Amino acid sequence: MQRFVNNPDEVVEDTVKGFVKAHSDIVRLADNPRVIAARNAPRAGKVGVVTGGGSGHEPAFIGYTGENMLDAVAVGELFSSPTAKSFYDAIREADGGKGVVCLYGNYAGDNMNVKMAIKLAAKDGIEVATVVANDDVCSASRDEREKRRGVAGEIFMWKVGGAKAAKGASLETVRATAQRAIDNCRSIGVGLGPCTLPAVGHPNFEIAPGTMEVGIGHHGEPGVRVEPLKSAAEIARDMCTIVLDDHDLPEGTEVAVLVSGLGATPLNELYILNDTIESEIVKRGLKIHRTYIGNYFTSLEMIGATLTVMALDDELKELLDTDVRCAAIL
Amino acid sequence: MQRFVNNPDEVVEDTVKGFVKAHSDIVRLADNPRVIAARNAPRAGKVGVVTGGGSGHEPAFIGYTGENMLDAVAVGELFSSPTAKSFYDAIREADGGKGVVCLYGNYAGDNMNVKMAIKLAAKDGIEVATVVANDDVCSASRDEREKRRGVAGEIFMWKVGGAKAAKGASLETVRATAQRAIDNCRSIGVGLGPCTLPAVGHPNFEIAPGTMEVGIGHHGEPGVRVEPLKSAAEIARDMCTIVLDDHDLPEGTEVAVLVSGLGATPLNELYILNDTIESEIVKRGLKIHRTYIGNYFTSLEMIGATLTVMALDDELKELLDTDVRCAAIL
Repeated sequence: MQRFVNNPDEVVEDTVKGFVKAHSDIVRLADNPRVIAARNAPRAGKVGVVTGGGSGHEPAFIGYTGENMLDAVAVGELFSSPTAKSFYDAIREADGGKGVVCLYGNYAGDNMNVKMAIKLAAKDGIEVATVVANDDVCSASRDEREKRRGVAGEIFMWKVGGAKAAKGASLETVRATAQRAIDNCRSIGVGLGPCTLPAVGHPNFEIAPGTMEVGIGHHGEPGVRVEPLKSAAEIARDMCTIVLDDHDLPEGTEVAVLVSGLGATPLNELYILNDTIESEIVKRGLKIHRTYIGNYFTSLEMIGATLTVMALDDELKELLDTDVRCAAIL
Repeated sequence: MQRFVNNPDEVVEDTVKGFVKAHSDIVRLADNPRVIAARNAPRAGKVGVVTGGGSGHEPAFIGYTGENMLDAVAVGELFSSPTAKSFYDAIREADGGKGVVCLYGNYAGDNMNVKMAIKLAAKDGIEVATVVANDDVCSASRDEREKRRGVAGEIFMWKVGGAKAAKGASLETVRATAQRAIDNCRSIGVGLGPCTLPAVGHPNFEIAPGTMEVGIGHHGEPGVRVEPLKSAAEIARDMCTIVLDDHDLPEGTEVAVLVSGLGATPLNELYILNDTIESEIVKRGLKIHRTYIGNYFTSLEMIGATLTVMALDDELKELLDTDVRCAAIL
């Protein structure tokens, strides 16, 4: 393992410490050392916005804590859900008396722990609404959308939800707007190389050299097919076909595009993918409002990339374009 | 090669196309397809700020084109200097009638081609001043600082120079301020894994598993020693010792810190490094003004990281903190 780690069992501990040191102008560690809160949270009279998830996806989730974004984030171990207690503590850190919206991804552990956290928060009189992200098109069929996992579309959900909350909207309005944001997102991942949990020491799944996994999940969950590695343009076309066929947007729709590396893919290759992605999107009669390219939602040192396409309306566009201040600046 | 590429000989072509598509609100392709210019460049009455360098270091150099940063960038092939013609065309794109400052790294090809470009620009009546970055402490001894290469400190040089030019300073003042910025920077790289030029198909240097190259350059140039891979904390301490011993800053000095991944190292490991880096810097009695962590200056899919420490004064701090708008947002 050619990695920068200390004790492999303390990767999350060390990551969080180094993160808080780097960005102490924006974030703070809560009393619970598995909760990161924005420096300016909670804000009285504002709906709190929280998320949480396993570590190893940096800058997700902690890097999106900050002004006009997330008020608090529950931090899990590598690729594992945060505890119910951590979700609960994140909710408390974010509570400004107007309720808290928890915008998280559709994973069994997160679903269970958020539910328990909501019960704990209810005892404190904190009302919690939730949106469960399910933008990963390859993780279940279109008829079973509720089974799909949440991936990089969550970033758009947080940005929209965070901006709406900052404008002073009610809990129900923030929830509904964040729900609309993620409903408007479709994502796909393609894996060219696996990743290794430092404490395990070998990859937890395989991608044979010369092949690729189309539809891979953020923890190496199998996709829809394994096939010989194609050219960037062919891969980009396949990604667009899968995402846009599922999306089925009317011509003229404005979209936001997010191309994220999975950790070990260099930025120039994401630009190469984007060259074809943009052409394909335009070919469908869609209009690109804004493109984000970089390591926005990763999977340790996985080689690969994800594509997220979000359909916009006037309000979503305005909310997405609201300035934020967080470590993973958008 | 588990990579997203089309024709390996057209990696730069495809990268630039995808980049310009993604960020067309900020940048434009010049008539010379190896020159990226800011949308708002040239600005009449403002000193133009340009750089250039080989590709494969994205977001450097192109990602720093934009408001209050670089006006134009000359783009080279992978790990190769841009041509003199491209440097010249970048200078012309940036020229607002008040002269142009070229802030670039100390590499033989760049030195030669910038010199030729200056001669061409002189015929057009464009005055060009230069600053040659040499922040890489391991690339030559302290007595031969003029031989050192430029690495990630260049980002601070561009940010300071870009902000100073935006304030309306004269060519000589912009040059002198950018020179002070890079004089105040020291950097070091540590490599844990090599990188491969797609057209070559195999790594152009070796880093044996279980070892690391301390002081590695941005193209795999050998460092000062190869040694068994240590813990993140030990590596971070070594990086700090080398950088800070060379820097030799008085106690109480404020510094900016930049920890950059080299392409295939995930963000969480950079945070792990930063945990120790910050402690070491504080231990020396220095005060950290601001920390940047991410893939700011890479080397294709090299595994590794660089540390840059820049000493600040009041003016450098103000310039560094000036808001910019570029793809690799700071």
